[in-house]
Amino acid sequence: MKILIKIAYDGTAYCGYQVQPNGVTVQQRLNEAAEAVFGYPCDIVGCSRTDSGVHALEFCATVSKKSQESLQTSIPIERIPLAMSAHLPTDISVYDAVWVSDAFHARYDVKEKEYLYRIYNRSVRSPFEERRSCHLPKHFSDRDLARMQEAAKCFVGEHDFSSYMAQGSKITDCIRTITESEVTREGDVILYRVRANGFLYHMVRILAGTLVAVGEGKLSPNDIPSVTEARNRTLAGITMPPEGLYLHRVIYPEHCLRLDWEGRS
Amino acid sequence: MKILIKIAYDGTAYCGYQVQPNGVTVQQRLNEAAEAVFGYPCDIVGCSRTDSGVHALEFCATVSKKSQESLQTSIPIERIPLAMSAHLPTDISVYDAVWVSDAFHARYDVKEKEYLYRIYNRSVRSPFEERRSCHLPKHFSDRDLARMQEAAKCFVGEHDFSSYMAQGSKITDCIRTITESEVTREGDVILYRVRANGFLYHMVRILAGTLVAVGEGKLSPNDIPSVTEARNRTLAGITMPPEGLYLHRVIYPEHCLRLDWEGRS
Repeated sequence: MKILIKIAYDGTAYCGYQVQPNGVTVQQRLNEAAEAVFGYPCDIVGCSRTDSGVHALEFCATVSKKSQESLQTSIPIERIPLAMSAHLPTDISVYDAVWVSDAFHARYDVKEKEYLYRIYNRSVRSPFEERRSCHLPKHFSDRDLARMQEAAKCFVGEHDFSSYMAQGSKITDCIRTITESEVTREGDVILYRVRANGFLYHMVRILAGTLVAVGEGKLSPNDIPSVTEARNRTLAGITMPPEGLYLHRVIYPEHCLRLDWEGRS
Repeated sequence: MKILIKIAYDGTAYCGYQVQPNGVTVQQRLNEAAEAVFGYPCDIVGCSRTDSGVHALEFCATVSKKSQESLQTSIPIERIPLAMSAHLPTDISVYDAVWVSDAFHARYDVKEKEYLYRIYNRSVRSPFEERRSCHLPKHFSDRDLARMQEAAKCFVGEHDFSSYMAQGSKITDCIRTITESEVTREGDVILYRVRANGFLYHMVRILAGTLVAVGEGKLSPNDIPSVTEARNRTLAGITMPPEGLYLHRVIYPEHCLRLDWEGRS
């Protein structure tokens, strides 16, 4: 069996999630914590690869014994979050843990993921939003916001999202299904929430940049379908900076989380 | 005339608000920014002295020319927040500025101040609450919370608050009037909000510590009036740590903010 852990992290100090030769990553810190808790080297498989500076409110990963599927431990599962968190820096926290079958795969079994993009929309910076959101000083009016909301709806559905993928990516199948895409405002914060069965490289940051272009009047909501159809990165908005991006939810099919599940669909 | 500025700051990196011989303070950073913007040394008078690690969502201070009441500048008042913020580190932000009369005093003219005390109530830490709240891992039930809410109400009114003042303070008149005192919960955050015409040294942190003692069952809401009447610091709760404390609002009488106001009541 493996342990599926849920993690939150402030990505500011890390070169992204995945282990890299140059620079500290979240995965490296999880590896160290797992070895300290279980007493032997572990394999950590994450649900996703977040970029440098990107945050996670819910990131899922499995822990197994290195080069083996099964992990053994005498620590009760409900104590794992505190035990691992005790060996992690304060910007990474394990808050949940459950046993899953050896057949479970933290990345391949993901059904849907949800991201948030957070914009701080006020003329001056806030000390409390620093590195936690993207600061856009020019005020978006209610009318601007309504146009962004209308544009966000146009992303919903099954589309080829090549226009919203970073250039240079080797991915060729760019068809994804967005099931939720909405813009809300609370006080000085504008929040873009998007859920899909998968995302291309930089896709959420480019979708958010395209919505900002709509808010700024550089694009109209009516332009969105043709930007999507053109499959041309240069027609979409800019890639927004990483500090506004949060992995918010990771959804697995119910049967994958059942312990008696040994097959794979 | 003087300029009244409104400031937000994350107090983590500072030895409190007021200038000190050892360690960097918020006031020192404001002094440097004001001199950079106005071109001459300035006097900064703050509304309060926050302790090391304490935050402010709204802190008020006046800027005047050093050793003189009046300040002259060709910069339009509406540009002052951005101009000063440009010379401040990212954990301090000036977000509003108005002209006030020379007779205005940022500290003596305060009518009421409101503080928030933020408790993160979850078994594991959150990376996003680190140094922004006090972490209490033991869960407060709805019943515990109701008792804290009942206790908070007992602080309202004119009382001698000696029981809630740090020992060693030289203040002798400990009578203050609390006008609002309430505990709310939103998700994993418990928030204590308290407004008064003045606060004694460490008073909000001790009031919050007393409410936590009530939540933990060490005190009953019915004990609060007698704890207050005893004027005995040892009967109240602990002094909560600074990272949960936020100066939230500073209220001046309307007439003090009028430019034609030259008297003092």
